Formats: sequence, structure tokens, C-alpha cells
Amino acid sequence: MTDQIRPTPRTRVRRGHERAVFDRDAVHAILDAAALCHIAWLLDGAPALTPTLHWRVGDRVYWHGSSASRTLRRSKGAEICLNATILDGYVLARSAFHHSVNYRSVTVFGVPQIVEGTQAKTEALRAMMDHLVPGRWEKLRDINDKELKATTVMWLPLDEVSAKVRAGGPIDDEEDYALDIWAGTVPVAPAFAAPVDDARLKPGLAVPAHVRDRFKAAQS
Amino acid sequence: MTDQIRPTPRTRVRRGHERAVFDRDAVHAILDAAALCHIAWLLDGAPALTPTLHWRVGDRVYWHGSSASRTLRRSKGAEICLNATILDGYVLARSAFHHSVNYRSVTVFGVPQIVEGTQAKTEALRAMMDHLVPGRWEKLRDINDKELKATTVMWLPLDEVSAKVRAGGPIDDEEDYALDIWAGTVPVAPAFAAPVDDARLKPGLAVPAHVRDRFKAAQS
Repeated sequence: MTDQIRPTPRTRVRRGHERAVFDRDAVHAILDAAALCHIAWLLDGAPALTPTLHWRVGDRVYWHGSSASRTLRRSKGAEICLNATILDGYVLARSAFHHSVNYRSVTVFGVPQIVEGTQAKTEALRAMMDHLVPGRWEKLRDINDKELKATTVMWLPLDEVSAKVRAGGPIDDEEDYALDIWAGTVPVAPAFAAPVDDARLKPGLAVPAHVRDRFKAAQS
Repeated sequence: MTDQIRPTPRTRVRRGHERAVFDRDAVHAILDAAALCHIAWLLDGAPALTPTLHWRVGDRVYWHGSSASRTLRRSKGAEICLNATILDGYVLARSAFHHSVNYRSVTVFGVPQIVEGTQAKTEALRAMMDHLVPGRWEKLRDINDKELKATTVMWLPLDEVSAKVRAGGPIDDEEDYALDIWAGTVPVAPAFAAPVDDARLKPGLAVPAHVRDRFKAAQS
């Protein structure tokens, strides 16, 4: 039996509850596949929003930023909400009303924790790089104390978490299936173009395997 | 001279202010290009997040949902924040610290307004379809009163709005340019796969031109 997440009053899916996902592995997979997340935080009592990169280690979702960032300073010790959404396709129905999108979406509520200490911070940032471009961390020059001080790493436990998924074709009103209207879905996914050398790249350096492997072009 | 947006204390860009964009046409173009937006709203005093489709008409950004949706009911008359972000590429530097992403991002603060009345609501939903799949509205069966009642359309004025853009290659520490480390960018963009017929499609209906034109495959 798979590990199921227990919904809270906040994470119980109200609209389209048939799309709710509380399987922990499925939630992890969505977080791992999403390129970006959004973090909602309180700015003088009103909600504010910051898009950022995230990564996951076990049952924690991490993000980072400048230690001087207003988003990170204000979200310390306060309730925030994180959402990561992947758009998978457009669902074109026979009526405007039944148009939709296919997506996978994870929402996490909680009070963020801060990663403290040189070693823990370095490990967290290494985990970020291992997620973003596996095999690259080893190739880079070492991170230094000044950079570690300038960086804040935060995380939320995947406790108060829910996911919602829509997949498949349009669901039209029964009588509309007889109409002469094309209906279907159009899948969409991120596609990478060929890596572009930095203008100041040292002569003789080719695109390394870890970059080629990670960012395979759409048609390869 | 182009129309410039005046920053407020909330929309003044603090971190990376060289990336701030206050040109109104540029803000419009980012909103029009972004597939999704996120809306942050208050749920019992804590921030909550909802991803949704948006569209723009002039100086307003619109979204819609079920009239029974908690997000829409709770965000009536309350301050919300909307952000739409497009990921344009991965920026691979010579140190972990200078890794980044290229992106275009728009943030809007305000109290949402509701579109009232059959005609105004129909026009707004038509504008949504014209944005999502131009030429499709005319092919569909007409929207009816029950559907209009079940749908709430909201908008924010593009008054308290800001944008941030990062483009170009990595910016490394001067001494790191001498290292034997490949650096550069990997562009990313959404790519559409071929349209998939609905399983219950009426025989003889081909993918129409308005769908083919809107969702051109990546390599076409």
C-alpha cells in the first residue's frame, strides 16, 4: 500500500475533488518535475508572490535566495503557501464552458524553516544543483563562505500538502457530442534548445556530457 | 516616448533592480505570453495560492472560475496578488553561486473586480477564448445562461504592477573566467505535440486550421 497524505481543512480539495491526489510518491514526482514554484507570503497583511526554483529532498521542499531578499526575510517564522504547477496540455471541448487544461499541481502550507550552518547549507545547495543539472556540482569551483553567507536556504515539510491532477480529453455535455465541432487535446511540454556558449567561454571547451544529457532537445 | 508605469512602495523592485521593467507595452507582452498565472489570496489570515489561466484586455488582467470556488469567493473585495512568470532558460555559470535562470515575470497587486451582467461576462469569456485559441469561439455552440451563472469572471487593473526580466549569459566572478569550466545558457520554451482527437470525436472531423495554427509543433 502506498503512503497516503492526510488532508487538513486547508488542503482538502473542494472543487473537482475527483482530481485530488494524496499519494506521497505522486506528490514527490510532481514537485520533482515542476521547473518553478510560486511562494505566497504576507507583506504588511496582504499577500505577495515570488516565483522561484525549488528542489526536494525526502519529505522537504527547499528554495533559496539572497539573504537580503525581502521575500525571504518576511517569510521567516510566518505562514506561507507554495505551489508548483505543470501545464500538460490544452483541452478543447465542443462548448466554451467545458474547455480546460491538463495539469499537475502541488500546494504546500506551512512555516518555513531555515537551513543553518556551513555544512548543512552546502549540502542543501549541492542537492539543488544535483536536481537542476546532475553531475555539474563536481565540475564547478568550490562555493565559499562569502557566498554561503549571502545565501539563505529555506524549506517546508511536506506535511500540509495536496495535489491536483487533470488528464485526458474534454468532458462535454452529452448532447454536444453530436455537433460537427472538432474536440481534443493539445499536449504541451518544455523543450530545450541547443546550449549556447557563454560569450567569454575559454577557447576549446565543448558542451559537457552532463549538460547535453540533462537538456536533451525536443526532437532528439 | 513609451508609457511608463509608476512604481509603488510594493512594486519597487528591490533585489536586482537592474532587471525591473516598467514599460507598459513590455508588461502587456509578458502577460500575453505567459501560459498560466498564480493568484495569492488570504485564507483565514494566511496566504493561499491558486494557479489559473489569465488573459488581458487593455489595462486589465482577467481570470475566471467556478462561481462556487473558494478562491474566487474569498478574493472578492480583498487584496490579492497575481504573478505570471515565463521560464526562458537555464544560466549555467562557473560557480554554483552564479547559476541563474532567464525569465520574464509580472506581478500585479490589487482588489479584484467582478464582471457583472450577461453581455459583459460573455464578452470577457469570448476574449479569453480569442486569447487561448483565436478563431475557436465562432465554431462552438453558444454559451448559455446556466453556464454564465456558474462562471465568475474577475479582473485586476494593471495599476500596481511591475515586471522583472533576466536575459543573457552568466555573470561570473572575474577570476573564474580563466577556469576550464563550460558555461552558457540553455533556452527553454513550451512545445506543443500534435493535437489528439477526442475519443468520442464525430467521424470525418479533421483538426481545424484554427487549432493547427495556434498550436504549431516545436519543429515546424
